[in-house]
Amino acid sequence: MEIVNRLLKGDKISLARAISRVENGEGAPILEALFPYSGQAYHIGITGPPGAGKSTLVDKLTAKFVEEGKRVGIIAVDPTSPFSGGALLGDRVRMSALTGKEGVFIRSMASRGSLGGIARATKDVALVLDAYGMDYIIIETVGVGQVELDIAQLCDTTIVVLVPESGDSIQAMKAGLLEIADIIVVNKADREGADRMVTELKFTYELRSEKGKWKYPILQTVATRGEGIELLGITIGSHRDYAEGSGSLKDKRKERIRVRITELIEEKIRERLRRQVFKKGELEEAIERIYRKELNPFRIADEIVRQVIN
Amino acid sequence: MEIVNRLLKGDKISLARAISRVENGEGAPILEALFPYSGQAYHIGITGPPGAGKSTLVDKLTAKFVEEGKRVGIIAVDPTSPFSGGALLGDRVRMSALTGKEGVFIRSMASRGSLGGIARATKDVALVLDAYGMDYIIIETVGVGQVELDIAQLCDTTIVVLVPESGDSIQAMKAGLLEIADIIVVNKADREGADRMVTELKFTYELRSEKGKWKYPILQTVATRGEGIELLGITIGSHRDYAEGSGSLKDKRKERIRVRITELIEEKIRERLRRQVFKKGELEEAIERIYRKELNPFRIADEIVRQVIN
Repeated sequence: MEIVNRLLKGDKISLARAISRVENGEGAPILEALFPYSGQAYHIGITGPPGAGKSTLVDKLTAKFVEEGKRVGIIAVDPTSPFSGGALLGDRVRMSALTGKEGVFIRSMASRGSLGGIARATKDVALVLDAYGMDYIIIETVGVGQVELDIAQLCDTTIVVLVPESGDSIQAMKAGLLEIADIIVVNKADREGADRMVTELKFTYELRSEKGKWKYPILQTVATRGEGIELLGITIGSHRDYAEGSGSLKDKRKERIRVRITELIEEKIRERLRRQVFKKGELEEAIERIYRKELNPFRIADEIVRQVIN
Repeated sequence: MEIVNRLLKGDKISLARAISRVENGEGAPILEALFPYSGQAYHIGITGPPGAGKSTLVDKLTAKFVEEGKRVGIIAVDPTSPFSGGALLGDRVRMSALTGKEGVFIRSMASRGSLGGIARATKDVALVLDAYGMDYIIIETVGVGQVELDIAQLCDTTIVVLVPESGDSIQAMKAGLLEIADIIVVNKADREGADRMVTELKFTYELRSEKGKWKYPILQTVATRGEGIELLGITIGSHRDYAEGSGSLKDKRKERIRVRITELIEEKIRERLRRQVFKKGELEEAIERIYRKELNPFRIADEIVRQVIN
């Protein structure tokens, strides 16, 4: 494909177009063609509650990687509602400071549509950026819901960003954030309560530590002033070394392949169902009869599955 | 089934147990057995941004229905993160004032787990309450994400609750809330800006009105003092009359059947895949080879689908 060839040669416009197609759900041939070129990029997830300063952190971290001569793709996912603060436009404006930079590509993904869809689209966009030749792909998610957990599954290193606020460490624990964290960053560490928060978070080790497993380092940063970013970069490197050495990176990446295959299969089956079963009008008749309580949808579903599957 | 028989005879303990089983994903036989008894309850959805006073509104509306001798099931869905305000415990405590009442059953559903799962579980719990003999099922959702849109699809009348706050009507529009609204309630209408908000919302008619379609009435309430609840009840009745008369209620309910069948089929196919394909070890080998870039997951998915489907 022309678009794939150009993208692989480093053409940014083709990259942007390919990503748009993938986002619109028309990317299957592109993804298939690009797959063999993927697998090189290191995926970093950055998540945490709104207002933790994640975007600034991503900004500074990216600048650091760029200084080291690395290429960085950023996917900013914001599935939160407009009511929750409307960080969308703010992010886009701020991030444009990086957009011009050589070797940086930023994509904001926001959708009030399907949440499952956005996690899926994020994975696909990440594959495109990976094949394009990015050294790092940073995926920033706002919030702490299912999308974040799904996206964490895609990342080689997941950084959970918190701010010193009373009770936040407990909340992060309850939300399952500490279970996905490879590194914890207490940002805005010049605020009161930062040290206490670190102490609290260290206490949570006792609740989850298993022998021989990676213990998340807890770093303090003041992202707006760039403080702690250097150490964060080094710590990401340490986690990467650990993950490669222990085999956990390989396991994670295999697990991702498993998830992708499962998703692809389910998608294809859904498509088959639409073509084979749902277009014949049989379904319409069944619905009418179910509505009149003559049939039970549970039995009908069984029958249809028996028809379609070997 | 014993549990089903007892539930149908009005036993509340069996109802609670059946709901628990359904929530835990073990409810398939119960749902199948109850389906023929469902279809009588009128489903009311109440949604809107956090802090709009939805719970109080649900409370008062329920009390009104109970006074009229009706039976009411309430499902309070809170898929929001602990970071977003933690309304959970508050709701539970407050709602216990109603719990004791004859003819009222309340279920709080909160999960940091799958969002798709919570919408699905809500539908299933609603089916159980419906078969149990509830006249009204009120489904309260916090937030404005995909879950709310999915749940609106389940409801016969959807009420969107807003509060007079600058910009909130625009946000509601952007979030797609006005598209699912059958009735809009401006709650806390004793606050400044309530009239202006109503004017703004009326303006949105111009943006969406189609001839012959229901135009959402815009009501003002002060739920804490019970003001406007009587009129809200009457308006729900009007919308119901309209929906029944115009055939839109029938269409909606048929659409729900379609969605349910589709979900059931997909579930069953997933289960088959797990048993037939994924247990043979073939998948493990494929994953290993994909990891080594010897195979392409897109092709493998195709092959598996061809194996399984007729």
